[in-house]
Amino acid sequence: MAGPLAGKTIAILATDGFEKSELFDPRDRFAAAGAEVHVVAPHAGEIRSWDKIEWGESVPVDRTVEQVSAEAYDALVLPGGQINPDVLRTKPQAVALVQAFARQEKPIGAICHGPWMLIEAELVRGRQATSYPSIRADMRNAGADWSDREVVVDGNFVTSRKPDDLPAFCDALAHLIRGAALPGAVA
Amino acid sequence: MAGPLAGKTIAILATDGFEKSELFDPRDRFAAAGAEVHVVAPHAGEIRSWDKIEWGESVPVDRTVEQVSAEAYDALVLPGGQINPDVLRTKPQAVALVQAFARQEKPIGAICHGPWMLIEAELVRGRQATSYPSIRADMRNAGADWSDREVVVDGNFVTSRKPDDLPAFCDALAHLIRGAALPGAVA
Repeated sequence: MAGPLAGKTIAILATDGFEKSELFDPRDRFAAAGAEVHVVAPHAGEIRSWDKIEWGESVPVDRTVEQVSAEAYDALVLPGGQINPDVLRTKPQAVALVQAFARQEKPIGAICHGPWMLIEAELVRGRQATSYPSIRADMRNAGADWSDREVVVDGNFVTSRKPDDLPAFCDALAHLIRGAALPGAVA
Repeated sequence: MAGPLAGKTIAILATDGFEKSELFDPRDRFAAAGAEVHVVAPHAGEIRSWDKIEWGESVPVDRTVEQVSAEAYDALVLPGGQINPDVLRTKPQAVALVQAFARQEKPIGAICHGPWMLIEAELVRGRQATSYPSIRADMRNAGADWSDREVVVDGNFVTSRKPDDLPAFCDALAHLIRGAALPGAVA
């Protein structure tokens, strides 16, 4: 498919309880821009969204965490929701996958409560970041230079606060992904 | 009412999304032991429980956070649930109430995800504690000496991991509350 992200493959790592818009919106935007997007989860089948105050619609799981490696992807997206990252951070293989994306210096975007996964992966120290405000103390205690902005980009890391920030979050991440094929190049 | 906690008044601080058993069980145990137990929440009316995987029954709010002060109570209970403490920690008056109990050296019990409130209140550093395993990194990053035990008592603080730990959690907290009338005395 043509588009600014043609030829790129993007993983969205989540489990049950992800905030609906924070998975569906990046998935749809990046797919519309030409990327191949895979929903990756600890278990096969489908994962159920959280739609603001109640369980929402489910999405099919394209690959399990066991089936994937960071090598096969150009970028990683970590949606929020209160339940999803709280469960996901207890899965060592999921945490290791995030760490592998970081080692390979690939773009990682985390929004809302998604940055809990960055804390668990010990990727936050000394880094500029934002998150849903409720986890600000967790981010700062993990060593983040936290600020209340719609999107914060530090190296390969893109963080945002909440669903309202999704346009800025996706734009910043897409910008990194487009440039990611040539590390060190001017994107 | 007669009983080992007769004459004691205990606050349970929570909001919507508290894990059902972690509010109902301490409330019923402490009331059966003779204590007066108040459910304290940021808003009046009632707060809705989370029952393992779905919204559960509600409980009436006895006092709002604005209506209470730590002086009127002998102890504080902080139930878990993924949603409840994540919301509660964003309420400055709720966090200040926890800090007031700590300043007055009154027993504070926090279970499951409830210890997030202790993190937010900056009461964790250098303290032995436990919690639901998913927030272990947050506890350690906040300075806790975290261990995987059904109940950890450090000074006036009692922490436990999950609903299965409720009997040990309530017993340890009741022991502290009985002794709390005479600080320094052998309980």
